[in-house]
Amino acid sequence: MPRRTVIIGGGAAGLGSAGGVKAADPEADVVVYTQFEDVAYSPCGIPYVHGGEIPDFERLFLAGKQAYVDAGIDIRYETEVTAIDTAAHTVEVAGEGTVRYDSLIIATGFDYADPGVPGGDLSGLYYVKNIRKAMEWDKVIEKTERAVVVEAGPLGLEMVTALAHRGVETHLVDPNPYALAAMADPDIMAPVEQSWRELGVHLHFNTTLEAFLGDGNGAVRAVRTSDGEIPAELVVVATHKTPNNELAAAAGLKLGTTGGIIVDERMATSAPDVWAAGDVSEIPHGLTRTPLQGLTGSHAYAQGKTAGTNAGGGDRAYRAVFVPWATPAGKWVIGGASFGETTATALGIPYVTGEAQGISRARYYPGVQPVRVKLLAEPGTLRLIGAQMIGGGEGIKERADFLAQAIRFGLTLNDLSTMENVYSPAIGALNEPIVLAATDGVAAASKG
Amino acid sequence: MPRRTVIIGGGAAGLGSAGGVKAADPEADVVVYTQFEDVAYSPCGIPYVHGGEIPDFERLFLAGKQAYVDAGIDIRYETEVTAIDTAAHTVEVAGEGTVRYDSLIIATGFDYADPGVPGGDLSGLYYVKNIRKAMEWDKVIEKTERAVVVEAGPLGLEMVTALAHRGVETHLVDPNPYALAAMADPDIMAPVEQSWRELGVHLHFNTTLEAFLGDGNGAVRAVRTSDGEIPAELVVVATHKTPNNELAAAAGLKLGTTGGIIVDERMATSAPDVWAAGDVSEIPHGLTRTPLQGLTGSHAYAQGKTAGTNAGGGDRAYRAVFVPWATPAGKWVIGGASFGETTATALGIPYVTGEAQGISRARYYPGVQPVRVKLLAEPGTLRLIGAQMIGGGEGIKERADFLAQAIRFGLTLNDLSTMENVYSPAIGALNEPIVLAATDGVAAASKG
Repeated sequence: MPRRTVIIGGGAAGLGSAGGVKAADPEADVVVYTQFEDVAYSPCGIPYVHGGEIPDFERLFLAGKQAYVDAGIDIRYETEVTAIDTAAHTVEVAGEGTVRYDSLIIATGFDYADPGVPGGDLSGLYYVKNIRKAMEWDKVIEKTERAVVVEAGPLGLEMVTALAHRGVETHLVDPNPYALAAMADPDIMAPVEQSWRELGVHLHFNTTLEAFLGDGNGAVRAVRTSDGEIPAELVVVATHKTPNNELAAAAGLKLGTTGGIIVDERMATSAPDVWAAGDVSEIPHGLTRTPLQGLTGSHAYAQGKTAGTNAGGGDRAYRAVFVPWATPAGKWVIGGASFGETTATALGIPYVTGEAQGISRARYYPGVQPVRVKLLAEPGTLRLIGAQMIGGGEGIKERADFLAQAIRFGLTLNDLSTMENVYSPAIGALNEPIVLAATDGVAAASKG
Repeated sequence: MPRRTVIIGGGAAGLGSAGGVKAADPEADVVVYTQFEDVAYSPCGIPYVHGGEIPDFERLFLAGKQAYVDAGIDIRYETEVTAIDTAAHTVEVAGEGTVRYDSLIIATGFDYADPGVPGGDLSGLYYVKNIRKAMEWDKVIEKTERAVVVEAGPLGLEMVTALAHRGVETHLVDPNPYALAAMADPDIMAPVEQSWRELGVHLHFNTTLEAFLGDGNGAVRAVRTSDGEIPAELVVVATHKTPNNELAAAAGLKLGTTGGIIVDERMATSAPDVWAAGDVSEIPHGLTRTPLQGLTGSHAYAQGKTAGTNAGGGDRAYRAVFVPWATPAGKWVIGGASFGETTATALGIPYVTGEAQGISRARYYPGVQPVRVKLLAEPGTLRLIGAQMIGGGEGIKERADFLAQAIRFGLTLNDLSTMENVYSPAIGALNEPIVLAATDGVAAASKG
């Protein structure tokens, strides 16, 4: 009799898990429960359809439903799991009753943090997540004159740019002194904020949301903030991601300080035969061991693959993370790895820096873009511990990937200052910006 | 009295050297001799002006002559050094006589290998090197109907594409079975060759040049090859780079198997107080220790900086190379690090491979490009020893830089298969192509 794996959640972690189980145990009986009508689309693309960069929502879909049927993965759409009994190895499923599992994978994802202010039940509050709802909201955006984006996290950045590109008068409200304050440094974000201003965006930093204000007919008409009222027919609530951990908590699974399910390197939870993956779990940072939650779809997919492989009887490890990241922001692309100065300072981690303003191609080649690199290193050893970048776009993602591995494998500023680089006028400059930044850091350290 | 450093050569290695000396010893008396009218321009940009991608030659110039005067670097233009006496610490300079040095840096660069066939004195044979001549040749190209490019090395690739872009009927003649055979693998080059055919380029592989044929008035009218005559008014002779080693050889400096000057890690030659840098020197490959000569301008510049720093009394090492490379070729960008399968096989180095066809952005994001990655690893350890890539252009240069460091620091396919990657639809795909290729290699090795 085939072993049954039940997966709760049809996002990147859930479907990565399903594939992992099938790869390890092709005979496995794999059932995926999702509350939604669809799986296998990219929610990460939604802001770019809103912004007009991607022409339609349809192309965000990856595979048809038949593809999963063909792969032997039984997806139950619009079906809610209401409880887990880890002792009995069962889940309660609305409309199905008690369902037995041999292995259970919890991939219930995230919700946006409750903004915790009055007026949360008004219409006109948009939580970007589900593609079918996004299609409806896109029609709303088309008619919107003024919008507020609440919080300048990764999604907030994307939505601010998207709304501005759509010609909406856009206001960004964030309690921090600058955008993306949890990840990026203010010097990296200053050009982004300038480019938003050039797009006509109104920035309200150091500003606390106090209430959503209604028009008397149940629709939002404004937000009230610590800095006054901002009229708007649409509010994008882009608060930080919190783990969707209710089922896991009720089942008695151990949760960490972020609220995420604690997992080991095999993505196993504290309960036997129960695994977790994606935004509902927490993963330690590779240097600080601080638990992190709410990483990217790429992380969720890889974690799911790990959980699924192990649930299917295989053996796969998922390691602590060094968090390469990058995203378009205004007219720039920003990125980095591990942490920047702000986070290092907040964590009490000493560091030295190396910085440089480089270029992406030969200085004379059309299309050349600026690439600014800031590297953080451990004093003395000059071992790389973090990086932040801003540029026109070329190579930011690939540099972030590289720098995360440089941190993982203990490379130093000396190592990076002596690295070779491609020089070919159309695609790379004489001096690689990473090398320039590392050289600056080595010189500064030798003077210090 | 300030120490005098004499530098022979005004290219990337020579000027890198001059800067290195001044950085180490600001009081140094630095004299650079060059045969040419100019320094401080980028010869690497010439093919792209010919191709029309860069609008004019003027922008290839980096700094005016006054900038070097201001920096205390005495450049003697159109001045030939005719001999070196290492015992006397002097050079013979045409028009100046005997000039004493405390330190000497030889940065005499390269010449194209003599094609060794009759007709080499005909007009219409273009050796791409000097910018003033390139300006004249550009006018010739404007009127040219048919051209032959001799040899499909790095410059040959660029010139084939450039001439095709200019609407010239272009023939490529190369004795190897495919283009760039000394660096790249045939599977990487096949799409490049296809894109040249689409541009109307005629490819003559396995074809030996036998003679340049004249029209009776001293101008070339055709080339004769092992596969017949090819009429052409212009022949770009893009044979491989050979070290311009005559002065060094006459002075008794030790030369290596490539003909390049042998240097140690400080770029010191076999003679006291004599250094060498750039295409006239040879540098060991980081894995095989095979001497390499004729690397890029970026290498030359870094070697010059090392030689200059040491000549100026500082201390700087230049290490064995892992050779990240990348270049546009036809409608593609190709690249890699260390070596590919062809070279590994020729050197008798055993290897396993991992390969994948990935993408540069989310599959649904406009502008998404293919990125094919092939990784070579040592059997058993799966330690990375080489890489080859072809893609639309996005991130090829940065991936080549990364993979060269991955080889340098001993990363394995397992390491690369478990690396994190940025996922952001406009700039990076869910799965990084390097990760896919490494994963393929790990899977193949576990089956083998």
